[in-house]
Amino acid sequence: MPTMQTPIRTPATLPSLVELVDVGPRDGLQNEKQPVPAAVKIELVHRLQAAGLKEIEVTSYVSPKWVPQMADNTEVMSGIQRLPGVRYSVLTPNLKGFEAALRDQPDEIVVFGAASEAFSQKNINCSIAESIERFAPVVDAARAAGIYVRGAISCAVGCPYEGYVPPESVKYVATLMSSIGVQHIGVADTIGVGTPLKVQRALDAALSVYTVDDISGHFHDTYGQALANTLAALEMGVWQFDTSVAGLGGCPYAKGATGNVATEDVVYMLHGMGIETGIDLDALVDAGQYISEQLGRPSGSRVARALLAKRAG
Amino acid sequence: MPTMQTPIRTPATLPSLVELVDVGPRDGLQNEKQPVPAAVKIELVHRLQAAGLKEIEVTSYVSPKWVPQMADNTEVMSGIQRLPGVRYSVLTPNLKGFEAALRDQPDEIVVFGAASEAFSQKNINCSIAESIERFAPVVDAARAAGIYVRGAISCAVGCPYEGYVPPESVKYVATLMSSIGVQHIGVADTIGVGTPLKVQRALDAALSVYTVDDISGHFHDTYGQALANTLAALEMGVWQFDTSVAGLGGCPYAKGATGNVATEDVVYMLHGMGIETGIDLDALVDAGQYISEQLGRPSGSRVARALLAKRAG
Repeated sequence: MPTMQTPIRTPATLPSLVELVDVGPRDGLQNEKQPVPAAVKIELVHRLQAAGLKEIEVTSYVSPKWVPQMADNTEVMSGIQRLPGVRYSVLTPNLKGFEAALRDQPDEIVVFGAASEAFSQKNINCSIAESIERFAPVVDAARAAGIYVRGAISCAVGCPYEGYVPPESVKYVATLMSSIGVQHIGVADTIGVGTPLKVQRALDAALSVYTVDDISGHFHDTYGQALANTLAALEMGVWQFDTSVAGLGGCPYAKGATGNVATEDVVYMLHGMGIETGIDLDALVDAGQYISEQLGRPSGSRVARALLAKRAG
Repeated sequence: MPTMQTPIRTPATLPSLVELVDVGPRDGLQNEKQPVPAAVKIELVHRLQAAGLKEIEVTSYVSPKWVPQMADNTEVMSGIQRLPGVRYSVLTPNLKGFEAALRDQPDEIVVFGAASEAFSQKNINCSIAESIERFAPVVDAARAAGIYVRGAISCAVGCPYEGYVPPESVKYVATLMSSIGVQHIGVADTIGVGTPLKVQRALDAALSVYTVDDISGHFHDTYGQALANTLAALEMGVWQFDTSVAGLGGCPYAKGATGNVATEDVVYMLHGMGIETGIDLDALVDAGQYISEQLGRPSGSRVARALLAKRAG
């Protein structure tokens, strides 16, 4: 038997209930090359909520010049037949976007910042601190309007430019977000390079600023690590995760590679562990199959592929 | 915060070193439809050992009538330029197979049994107990010849016919294998339906018969759960795993679905966690790319796909 190493942070129990935010319609489709009609996006949201999803990241209020895929934000938001108990969130990159979003009455908005200075500079041409400062009026306006504010911390374990991102950087962004009134943070492994201990250290850093009830995990499956990272997070008591139906959303930093972890794969693991999600896996697989057919490509979910192969005999 | 559930068995430390057995040449290629020339199999073994694999499951001594893909067993075994410190194992389903294998001087043989009576009956037309009893003379002969004997316990968490397989069934097969002198057991999630707590319970059952140093995990990635299951096993101190380069080996129970977990994906996780394997990931990806090109299909490894996409820019 080899010698043993690194203690791992694990309480003796796991959450009995997990809440998933399906980010497929926004974070997923935004990274898909081909345009998707608003009616298809609306149908996808309808199928996700029918499958039991209680929160859906619907769209983004960003300039159509930069993200043409989300130009139909108002059309999509106003076309959704909302279900009571379901929360609809949207990405708002600035005050102008927030004001447009406000008219469409989202339940939550998402603001964002990177844990890597290089990523922040390359993506939004400013420092991490400046990017968070710019969000302050957005957060103020949202909270004044009674809208819940989530913050997404990208590159929380690795960066395509800087490589390794230390936990201290996650704590730094979390502290900045907390200072402007962000109510919940998502610790995002944007490029999927995280592995369980690194993810636990990043979450541990976030936990020095936010409580476990105000932290989500957002793991990409580019290197197939997302479920192991989800397990590692569950073991710390984290019970909220972002996932994307059918694994929608490629990885812009590695062509042909997988992006967001598939909701189906996470649900399969959770249900297999006796953890409730309120989601009907079969209906979810159907929702994923619907959008995969619309995109004309196989689902990015291994669970969906295996279950569909089984159904086909 | 939701209430908490099920204690999970986790010592405070993780193994610092993990040994992987690459089962691609045997368990992997056996499930590939197209014939693969012996020279390609030999080259694959050479590339795996050059990448740092210390154990390789090379072939099977089973009737070519049943498994034509392994009819070249002697040609492959005698064509390998063996490296000191590397162990070469082969599957031997019966005494006739073992006698043929013996002439080719394997370091280890693998015998097998299912943890599901239905699977045993459908696959080898006898009960679990009968199947293990039939292996007794094979094990005797191997140990008399100084050859190490591994036992593979298939369907250790789920069965395509019976569904759920209880941990008691794993304990039952492990006890039978121990009684005939099998020295090491592999707890195999043959159809990939396992999730972390189920896998931990199956391993826990195995641990009531064998020590942790004599147990391997063998997880299929059909539902994308293999890395999470590997993490769950590591947390119990299990430090030996079977994996398959490029994820070779489809799942015969779900067409088009993934089978064995890819060695590359496991190595990526382990190295990311600071756990040593002695394997050079880049050389391993190249070995996987070699066999994938020979088979004319993309690698089943997410790590390989992401790294190759990155190399291509």
